[in-house]
Amino acid sequence: MFKKISIIGCGQIGSSILRDIKKKKISKKISVFDASSSVRKKIKTLKLAGKVEKNLKSTVFGSDFVILCSPVSSYKLIINSIRKSLKKNSILIDVGSVKTGVVKSIEKAINKDVSWISCHPICGAELSGPENGKQNLFKKKWCILTPSIKSKKKDIRIVKKFWIKLGSNIKVMNIKEHDRIFSITSHLPHLIAYNLVKTAMNLESRNKSNIIQFSGGGLRDFSRIAASNEIMWRDIFISNKKNLAKNIDNFIKNLNKMKKYIKNKKGSNLKNILNKTKIVRKKIILAKQDISKPDFGR
Amino acid sequence: MFKKISIIGCGQIGSSILRDIKKKKISKKISVFDASSSVRKKIKTLKLAGKVEKNLKSTVFGSDFVILCSPVSSYKLIINSIRKSLKKNSILIDVGSVKTGVVKSIEKAINKDVSWISCHPICGAELSGPENGKQNLFKKKWCILTPSIKSKKKDIRIVKKFWIKLGSNIKVMNIKEHDRIFSITSHLPHLIAYNLVKTAMNLESRNKSNIIQFSGGGLRDFSRIAASNEIMWRDIFISNKKNLAKNIDNFIKNLNKMKKYIKNKKGSNLKNILNKTKIVRKKIILAKQDISKPDFGR
Repeated sequence: MFKKISIIGCGQIGSSILRDIKKKKISKKISVFDASSSVRKKIKTLKLAGKVEKNLKSTVFGSDFVILCSPVSSYKLIINSIRKSLKKNSILIDVGSVKTGVVKSIEKAINKDVSWISCHPICGAELSGPENGKQNLFKKKWCILTPSIKSKKKDIRIVKKFWIKLGSNIKVMNIKEHDRIFSITSHLPHLIAYNLVKTAMNLESRNKSNIIQFSGGGLRDFSRIAASNEIMWRDIFISNKKNLAKNIDNFIKNLNKMKKYIKNKKGSNLKNILNKTKIVRKKIILAKQDISKPDFGR
Repeated sequence: MFKKISIIGCGQIGSSILRDIKKKKISKKISVFDASSSVRKKIKTLKLAGKVEKNLKSTVFGSDFVILCSPVSSYKLIINSIRKSLKKNSILIDVGSVKTGVVKSIEKAINKDVSWISCHPICGAELSGPENGKQNLFKKKWCILTPSIKSKKKDIRIVKKFWIKLGSNIKVMNIKEHDRIFSITSHLPHLIAYNLVKTAMNLESRNKSNIIQFSGGGLRDFSRIAASNEIMWRDIFISNKKNLAKNIDNFIKNLNKMKKYIKNKKGSNLKNILNKTKIVRKKIILAKQDISKPDFGR
């Protein structure tokens, strides 16, 4: 139980945390900041929290738990503004999808009596804003913790407890491992989805053919992923550029191989690859990261 | 109402058609052929049809409506085997996802008193086999007709009626248009999904990192598409290789551009692209090809 939790940035993830904190009575007081006046208005209309503020310093003032839920590119400005207002022995966490650069720079910026423990809950969807958050979003989802030098051990335990209370499974990783794993499981898939939709748009405008109407055979699913928040993903791509560039190169190498097989009608080589990727699907279902029910376009 | 419908190949699509024909009483007699004994056994266990046969000629004998639901690569063998058994004035259709080569070669092979009308219902999912078919699969889905010289006008009307009875929306296209549109809305997305999963597997085996466990952030959705039937997709890729090769080249060109923007931290160029792809999503929802509900991993 905290005395005061403050949430900075109240989009889909921030507002989902807010809903859980309120429902599970995890804090006596809750303060919410968002830079956008329309988001602040929505939070009020949705009656999600006690205090909605437009001043960063007064939001965090007196908080023992501060949760950063804004795009990675906004961290620097926010930390500069709040670092002197952070309470002694308070805990600062974030929910960002990328850790390189971010963890170190906040580590340097904050006072040593504040515990900085970077977090990454693996959830979220293609729609953003507080109206698209929901209760129990984090239930049975992974939450990755990437502690820094400024993470006190007892506080890591508190942060773990916090996420467990929200229903998450916890995994502690180092920054490098985190950014390498998520560059392939999340960052490259998003980039590829954006790129596929872009390629389809080019073709549509060149041929004046109606591809939207017939998108049910695959493109539709990619368009969902490619509708994710553009600020968030711009920041992630640029922050994790080293891992991402490597993945792009490997992806293109494999794609060119596939193209060669197709062009030369190498059916058995092609079938071999398609067979192997099927096994991955089975493993993912076994790891309970998806269900086996077929998706006939919902 | 037909006297006898025969279905050749009874996987997910074939068995779904079968379910609808039976339920809607579209034919007096139904005969089903499948080359696989385990599939034939499943159809019997599922009690889907009257007669399950392992002889192609006797399956089509006396049929006024023959539906080809097997992989594209099997067409030649099947047509050679049945062409002399096809009844005068009968109608032959298929449900294949690719038309180049296929439509012409059947057109040449069959007698002129048989109407050959190639069809492509836009549905299907990542699981195959008769146990994964379902009633009303074609309801509110597009069915594309690509008629040939050997399609009698009155029979095109009959085929349209057949699909309308199954609930489909009909669109008539020429072969070239069909294969160009579906090379981008369906064939490239599937190839990309297979290729992404392959690239992820390479990384996993190199780094011994557990990517399966953390696949919820995007990779999971691609793995679903990449679990589709490998024979069917091998055939589609090779049959539509010209369009596909062009799409692959455009895709790689765009991806390299994205990579350059990321490497050089060109945030605004990147955000521009991500913004535009979002509009496509809105159009797809407007065209009722998907719903706007967020997918939090189901």
